[in-house]
Amino acid sequence: MRKIAVLGSTGSIGTQTLDVISRLPDDFEVVGLAAGNNIELLLEQVHAFKPKWVSAANETLAERVRAEVPAGVRVLSGEAGLTEIAGNSGADYVVCALVGSLGLTSTLAAIEAGADIGLANKETLVTAGHLVMDRAKSRGVSILPVDSEHSAIFQCLNGEDGKAIKRLLLTASGGSFRHLGREELRNVSVADALKHPNWSMGAKVTIDSATMANKGLEVIEAHWLFGLPYDQIDVVLHPESIVHSMVEFVDTSVMAQLGNPDMRVPIQYALTYPKRVASPASPLDLLKQGSLHFKPMDFERYPCLRLAFEAGRSGGTATTVFNAANEIAVARFLRGEIPFLAIEDIIGNVLAKHATQAAPSLEAILETDAWARKEAAETE
Amino acid sequence: MRKIAVLGSTGSIGTQTLDVISRLPDDFEVVGLAAGNNIELLLEQVHAFKPKWVSAANETLAERVRAEVPAGVRVLSGEAGLTEIAGNSGADYVVCALVGSLGLTSTLAAIEAGADIGLANKETLVTAGHLVMDRAKSRGVSILPVDSEHSAIFQCLNGEDGKAIKRLLLTASGGSFRHLGREELRNVSVADALKHPNWSMGAKVTIDSATMANKGLEVIEAHWLFGLPYDQIDVVLHPESIVHSMVEFVDTSVMAQLGNPDMRVPIQYALTYPKRVASPASPLDLLKQGSLHFKPMDFERYPCLRLAFEAGRSGGTATTVFNAANEIAVARFLRGEIPFLAIEDIIGNVLAKHATQAAPSLEAILETDAWARKEAAETE
Repeated sequence: MRKIAVLGSTGSIGTQTLDVISRLPDDFEVVGLAAGNNIELLLEQVHAFKPKWVSAANETLAERVRAEVPAGVRVLSGEAGLTEIAGNSGADYVVCALVGSLGLTSTLAAIEAGADIGLANKETLVTAGHLVMDRAKSRGVSILPVDSEHSAIFQCLNGEDGKAIKRLLLTASGGSFRHLGREELRNVSVADALKHPNWSMGAKVTIDSATMANKGLEVIEAHWLFGLPYDQIDVVLHPESIVHSMVEFVDTSVMAQLGNPDMRVPIQYALTYPKRVASPASPLDLLKQGSLHFKPMDFERYPCLRLAFEAGRSGGTATTVFNAANEIAVARFLRGEIPFLAIEDIIGNVLAKHATQAAPSLEAILETDAWARKEAAETE
Repeated sequence: MRKIAVLGSTGSIGTQTLDVISRLPDDFEVVGLAAGNNIELLLEQVHAFKPKWVSAANETLAERVRAEVPAGVRVLSGEAGLTEIAGNSGADYVVCALVGSLGLTSTLAAIEAGADIGLANKETLVTAGHLVMDRAKSRGVSILPVDSEHSAIFQCLNGEDGKAIKRLLLTASGGSFRHLGREELRNVSVADALKHPNWSMGAKVTIDSATMANKGLEVIEAHWLFGLPYDQIDVVLHPESIVHSMVEFVDTSVMAQLGNPDMRVPIQYALTYPKRVASPASPLDLLKQGSLHFKPMDFERYPCLRLAFEAGRSGGTATTVFNAANEIAVARFLRGEIPFLAIEDIIGNVLAKHATQAAPSLEAILETDAWARKEAAETE
């Protein structure tokens, strides 16, 4: 039985992770749960899974949690609480489903403690891929992808020698504006943007899908997870979102992983790997689906993806800038402060102002992140 | 360096096998080549690959070969020559690319000698799957599939636990008459039938593709190769022939292997497994391809496939009858003796007359084969 901690347990990935775990009671014991502000749901989870370690966003919320949990449960708060659960709860597997830069420090703490990582937090690899992969290697821990695209690639690589890879083919649905041309994108509204065609996601991810910044972050993650140069990572438009990603090998064979979009499948694979077990997801009916389409990526139509590749190739702090500038620009769009197409302009402008620093320390990454956020907030 | 013998070296699979081997001179030494009547090509191959053991269809042809090869090369003939090369040439890998029942005895001889088998001969598993898989298991030899569908499934299963398989999904192009209804099939000619849409094949295989008997043989082979009941083997129509086959797992993930139709890819994989090496095949351009289609199999439209499943489920000698009756019926169609739709009638009638014998011996299989051929030749 594996001892598991879930960081970000009340979010979309966190709740689906607990759904998966609840169906595998003989395989996993939940030792830690960390959430933010949603302590009602956190308390429900604590009563259902009985972890010994719990954390909430701040001390006020932690006090309210303490009043309602059995004696012996340690209730912590804030970043210190996350790091404590990641590193000291006795977990040998940590699911990092936090949003934002909090993910990085707690993932590093879990790695130091020798826990395997189910990684759903993008910032961890985008901003500090070199540090995280180095530490994971030297501690002998596995980083298992939770994202459907990276899980698909991980599944295609099962049993394969990395040297036989010709290229990764990440698929992209094209987002909610995929039928619109550049001119039509000028005046799209927040409400328009939040209608993603394939599945429901948070607002930030939905906008990132529409700008393709999300795919850019995935490209950077794939670079670190699979240790491949950007020239061996391609993105192909696939509107049905059935083929989750593919790997082309040197012998011209292409392996693909397909399925209905259901995050519980890649989450479960990250938990049970190398085993596969039955899933509550609905099986893919390819006959009902009928057809699958593939179209070339258009980097003029999706400049955010082009910028992500450029930042990735620059390396060092550039990917931190890409991520931070994008986060701020999307937040400004969601508040109605800027038009949709200003998101790409802001990312491009902040990247242009930045002097990339190679192989940055954690401190340099955090400094760069703060600088890029400030710049993105002030850029027109 | 592996010592390899190619049985059926002048046929389509044989010549492509030697093409693959010629590109991997550091990995393979050809120790034996066996052909039938095409001794001009056999002699070319002997001069290029310098095997120590050679065999031709009969003693007259063998004499002509002997006159033209260097001293020290042993030139044999007939079934005895095949068996000798399979079992006594010192080969540790035997590619069995023979057509017809000759494949069975020589494959068994190679297994007894402890050689791994690259299997391209359908009859071997269709008629004697229980004997071949049992012997291979007890001798500790691997049976590596050369057919593109079985190679695709084998690739999808790389690194996977067989217990996690939900079902195999073999793809079928539908053959040259896939756009015709049952009524239109009544009067199709031999010339019509020999226009296969996706790649060039021999006449027998082309007719088998049009009747779907070929897919039926592949279903029976898959049953033996992957050790799965027929309820876990499905066939789906996929006119583009890009997805070579798929495996659905218990977690709902579907793994697929894709590529342009080029037999050198599965042949090479069977030779270099578990490694992948560069191939002369042209890489798949999914963007040029644009779309992939999947349609339900129609067992009313393709009764030969239904009969194959029925024979497979009956087991024992029934699959030998299916194969033998089909071979004779196709030969009669190609000679213009019977109409296209009589092929399925003949197979069905001979199967209906047959009392299935479970777990037959090699002798019983050969007797059944002879009986079924005679019946199929006389049935209207």
